[in-house]
Amino acid sequence: MDFINELNNKIELINNELISYFKKDDCPEKILNQSMEYSLMAGGKRIRPILIISSYSLFNNNIEKCMKFAIAMEMVHTFSLIHDDLPGIDNDDFRRGKLTNHKKFNEATAILAGDSLLNNAFGIIIKELIKSSGSEREKIIKALEEFSYGIDRMIAGEYVDTEYEGKEIANDYLEYMHKNKTGALIVASIKIGAILGGANEIELDNLTNYAEKIGLAFQIKDDILSEIGDEKIMGKPVGNDRERGKCTYVTKYGLEESTKMLNQITKQALSNLEIFGEKADFLKELARYIENRKK
Amino acid sequence: MDFINELNNKIELINNELISYFKKDDCPEKILNQSMEYSLMAGGKRIRPILIISSYSLFNNNIEKCMKFAIAMEMVHTFSLIHDDLPGIDNDDFRRGKLTNHKKFNEATAILAGDSLLNNAFGIIIKELIKSSGSEREKIIKALEEFSYGIDRMIAGEYVDTEYEGKEIANDYLEYMHKNKTGALIVASIKIGAILGGANEIELDNLTNYAEKIGLAFQIKDDILSEIGDEKIMGKPVGNDRERGKCTYVTKYGLEESTKMLNQITKQALSNLEIFGEKADFLKELARYIENRKK
Repeated sequence: MDFINELNNKIELINNELISYFKKDDCPEKILNQSMEYSLMAGGKRIRPILIISSYSLFNNNIEKCMKFAIAMEMVHTFSLIHDDLPGIDNDDFRRGKLTNHKKFNEATAILAGDSLLNNAFGIIIKELIKSSGSEREKIIKALEEFSYGIDRMIAGEYVDTEYEGKEIANDYLEYMHKNKTGALIVASIKIGAILGGANEIELDNLTNYAEKIGLAFQIKDDILSEIGDEKIMGKPVGNDRERGKCTYVTKYGLEESTKMLNQITKQALSNLEIFGEKADFLKELARYIENRKK
Repeated sequence: MDFINELNNKIELINNELISYFKKDDCPEKILNQSMEYSLMAGGKRIRPILIISSYSLFNNNIEKCMKFAIAMEMVHTFSLIHDDLPGIDNDDFRRGKLTNHKKFNEATAILAGDSLLNNAFGIIIKELIKSSGSEREKIIKALEEFSYGIDRMIAGEYVDTEYEGKEIANDYLEYMHKNKTGALIVASIKIGAILGGANEIELDNLTNYAEKIGLAFQIKDDILSEIGDEKIMGKPVGNDRERGKCTYVTKYGLEESTKMLNQITKQALSNLEIFGEKADFLKELARYIENRKK
């Protein structure tokens, strides 16, 4: 399997679906729509929608059936980044090498663009729900529950992050924060794909464990890159976390220990995919990709 | 019918349902939950949930079946107020005589409390959806579509309001802004109640017209109160709209013409309730209450 090729195909698929979503109508709130599109199309890694598609693909090849959840999830992720970047929270000027939403537009627009992305994410799924029937509808409702629960946990994690910025944080709080802030939507993505695809309980459990591990790995790697990443590749300043008093795996455990944890956790993630055999090759490579990524 | 008595009964019903929603668990995001509860329980008029209950009651007395939508709608309204008050939008220090969320807590908390209220509003309805079946489920899904659409329009109206603050605004834009900012959730509330109750198309049309009129009346009255209301009764400063360059019905059409419009529109609202006879007495009184309220 050519992982990078397959990854890029999936990213293109998601980007096309996202672009097609934006109505080009002239309306009084045109600039609000532009600001949503700006952040949504600012070159994200699309990890969460890719997880939905890849998890779904373990059970069913007709991925059209999970695409609405995939783009809804990316909209939620984008909403969380826009609000996270606001002056009232992280006050970041750049994200992915581009001006953050409130810097490109203004603060009011950024607040409302985030709000609208969250609401529109639900709106997209509700439209699918209306069209559905029978067991398909049951699956969508179950997936929708995971979706909302994941968002709830993500916001809780983000809150804990803001509350403890610049303060000493206990190890279990740090874990709680990350498990929710980054992990919750990653776990939700895998579960949504599995539920829509029709996974049984054991399969769902294994995939949930996998997702929890890569969610944690993703965060540890993020913290490592924030400390020693290449600014040019990352598209944002590096090494600010310590100055800012931000509590990360690196500031807490040091670089060496964090890297060891990252490797160990990735191995644990991979072991959860054994029951799926070759069909899970993409998800396996994805775990390694998260471990080794440069941005 | 003792309108004020019935109104207070409904408000109490809604407040009890809202209070029971807040889990008192100790958790790392405890203060976030407190901040959501603070704004939710800060003494709102509960107009939107009351509209859901009253519209539903035209068709069905078992109001338990619409209570989740009622409190979800109030959560959405509260989310919109919290974000509206933020320094990046209206920068208000007081609302209903109390400190605004970001003043009582902080900006990060207020942003995330708003986000969480919006997500939790969907979460509450999704839980109802899971428990439902058959035609009841169909109604919930249809109501959910109106819910999300109303939120989308409310945010669009709010955006237009921020874009035109301090600028000359064309009459049709002013109407568009209000129709969406205040009107959309009022219309959604009436429609949700009617859909859940099982209204036919003509009934739904009449109620929608009623809601559009009282939505507009509500906004005109708001603008009038912002100009000449009693600060002590209102719990917030009065007369700032003109200084701020805010475009309102009063700054646009003057006080006398605005009052005339308010009376006319209230009459139109009432005429749409004729087909329901006495059952609609409460909704009729509510329209008059909106017209004559002091805060």
